[in-house]
Amino acid sequence: MPIITLTTDFGEQDGYVAAMRGVILGLTPHATLVDVSHAVAPGAIRQGAYVLATAAPYFPADTVHVAVVDPGVGSARRPLLLRTPAGLFVGPDNGLLTETARLAWGEAARGEAYHLNRPATWRPLVSATFHGRDIFAPVAARLALGASPSALGDPIPDPVTLPPLDPTPVQGGWRGEVLHVDRFGNLITTLEVARLPAPLLLGHTVVAVAGRRVALAQTFSDVEVGGLVAYVGSSGRIEIAVRQGDAAATLGVGVGTPITVWTP
Amino acid sequence: MPIITLTTDFGEQDGYVAAMRGVILGLTPHATLVDVSHAVAPGAIRQGAYVLATAAPYFPADTVHVAVVDPGVGSARRPLLLRTPAGLFVGPDNGLLTETARLAWGEAARGEAYHLNRPATWRPLVSATFHGRDIFAPVAARLALGASPSALGDPIPDPVTLPPLDPTPVQGGWRGEVLHVDRFGNLITTLEVARLPAPLLLGHTVVAVAGRRVALAQTFSDVEVGGLVAYVGSSGRIEIAVRQGDAAATLGVGVGTPITVWTP
Amino acid sequence: MPIITLTTDFGEQDGYVAAMRGVILGLTPHATLVDVSHAVAPGAIRQGAYVLATAAPYFPADTVHVAVVDPGVGSARRPLLLRTPAGLFVGPDNGLLTETARLAWGEAARGEAYHLNRPATWRPLVSATFHGRDIFAPVAARLALGASPSALGDPIPDPVTLPPLDPTPVQGGWRGEVLHVDRFGNLITTLEVARLPAPLLLGHTVVAVAGRRVALAQTFSDVEVGGLVAYVGSSGRIEIAVRQGDAAATLGVGVGTPITVWTP
Repeated sequence: MPIITLTTDFGEQDGYVAAMRGVILGLTPHATLVDVSHAVAPGAIRQGAYVLATAAPYFPADTVHVAVVDPGVGSARRPLLLRTPAGLFVGPDNGLLTETARLAWGEAARGEAYHLNRPATWRPLVSATFHGRDIFAPVAARLALGASPSALGDPIPDPVTLPPLDPTPVQGGWRGEVLHVDRFGNLITTLEVARLPAPLLLGHTVVAVAGRRVALAQTFSDVEVGGLVAYVGSSGRIEIAVRQGDAAATLGVGVGTPITVWTP
Repeated sequence: MPIITLTTDFGEQDGYVAAMRGVILGLTPHATLVDVSHAVAPGAIRQGAYVLATAAPYFPADTVHVAVVDPGVGSARRPLLLRTPAGLFVGPDNGLLTETARLAWGEAARGEAYHLNRPATWRPLVSATFHGRDIFAPVAARLALGASPSALGDPIPDPVTLPPLDPTPVQGGWRGEVLHVDRFGNLITTLEVARLPAPLLLGHTVVAVAGRRVALAQTFSDVEVGGLVAYVGSSGRIEIAVRQGDAAATLGVGVGTPITVWTP
Repeated sequence: MPIITLTTDFGEQDGYVAAMRGVILGLTPHATLVDVSHAVAPGAIRQGAYVLATAAPYFPADTVHVAVVDPGVGSARRPLLLRTPAGLFVGPDNGLLTETARLAWGEAARGEAYHLNRPATWRPLVSATFHGRDIFAPVAARLALGASPSALGDPIPDPVTLPPLDPTPVQGGWRGEVLHVDRFGNLITTLEVARLPAPLLLGHTVVAVAGRRVALAQTFSDVEVGGLVAYVGSSGRIEIAVRQGDAAATLGVGVGTPITVWTP
């Protein structure tokens, strides 16, 4: 019985996630349910993809990952299944699933997409606002039970993909923004090193955020405790931190704050 | 092996919920534990009932739901088991369980109540302040193992019930109030469609809150981004939201704010 | 199949804990994973030990407890397995595991320590910053599968232990600090009654925090609703609360805030 993971922007204070768990366990009592996170900012598709992409590679390849960050629920956006060699992904066709696969396994990992359009495989009554419970949960359960993708929907060639967040050229450098603030207050940015058009130079390249400037360092321990540090994180992005501190709180910044980088 | 769900006001930062999980798994190693929420406001019985009622109907009928919102712990309030056709509920006899059943399945779903008064089925040492761990957890485990209600307590005819929050007739319509504010700032109201004495008409029925009026819509996408929208939510209640926004923050309202609905 | 519990300072908003879950379930698909808490303050080793010690005694004795509060990750600190008669503990050798055992079962419960130094039992690639995922998770899975401690590492006689937090003598009394703030805003302090060099006297001993002074009371109900109260909690420590209120918010204090106690 495969694992089923859940990633949503539903928070923990409501019964929404539990309703999904109940639907899944009602169909597959022996499934192992695992939470990734339910604290994705409401509607933050790119952040949801980032968070799931940091966890999905550590699960077995037959895991079913349900991801619901779905500001377009109730509109005509399609329900989607994305089958990749490294996992099955179920959720809205708004770029969330394709971006997760790209971040986790690179550009080539787009997989095969299916439009979930078999209402007989959903809950009998589908609400306009809660496809997580009424479509994605039962579809995930059926996948865990061995259903083939084609029993759940028709193949489609054009799942929605997010436009690459290429850095914006600005006076003397490039601009991105804060993509995610982790538990320690570290800022993970949209600036992927591989997408920057010029090489970064340790000690010379400068990263600016909230009026502060700091030279690019190798790692945390290159600065004193309490010092601001910019470095390339394990995900290949520029990250900004305060050593043994909370950069988001210290700088008063959050998701969406502009970040500028340039090499003098 | 049935599922056991947990709903509390204990939060996640302490070891309290985990102690309950340990007690349950020590008695029933094969139980499937599912969290509903541990973020119920401290002592907020109606909110706890609402949150559990939004999830409980999606679980199999032999699920054991443990709910602990228990401001009277240590007083003479009884420990309660409520057996309904749709689930078993274990927790304090303060209205939490009966209100959950009513919200989830209607007035007729009161079920059979048992006063949990068999100390031999509890943990040997019962603290004055933690019946969740010492009484409700072991009782839930025994139910999951197949114990009959009468082995756990004596039937009682008078479990505590909360006074119903029926819509109040007002000039030209009915009035309810905000019952719960969810993660997105959406307002869930006490106005259950099934309890309103007249039908609702899309585009004609008007919902008023905090001096604002809005026609009843089908779903979020019927209004522009940032617009106020009223609709019937997945729980069968009138809900009020701001599309891609936070209605509670925008309107400056919260639990208890009056809501009026009428059809011109 | 034993239970595996998880206690970390990773928070819930990232994919870090889920990555650990994926690694564990990839090796032991039938393990039962249980969260204790992921809201330990970043790097707060003593708080992590306190939280896990409040839950661990309620789990079966073959449970594997993984605890990761690891400010020294990437340094030379050893990965540790602590085998006690009441549970197996896996995590960094920084005092976290030994302090948990001491708090839960007393000074005599130190158990046997093993230096986890068998890279063949880890993930093939070990990052410098995430031993939770790359060392502790796979080791816990192997323990759950029945691996013997000696297959995972060499016995060591000297696991790190935290120095007892003896109260610091100050002008006329002793000083400790806030160890933990629970969900209700109660302050659990480092001041263990058994370690104070002079007896406490109800109504005479004075506890000071954030400029406020209050005489030691027996219990909550010795003060009026909204009143500040200091008392000896169930863990044998001085605790400070606001009756039916939130002491941490009222006083504006948190983990690490100094507490002074003296008997006039």
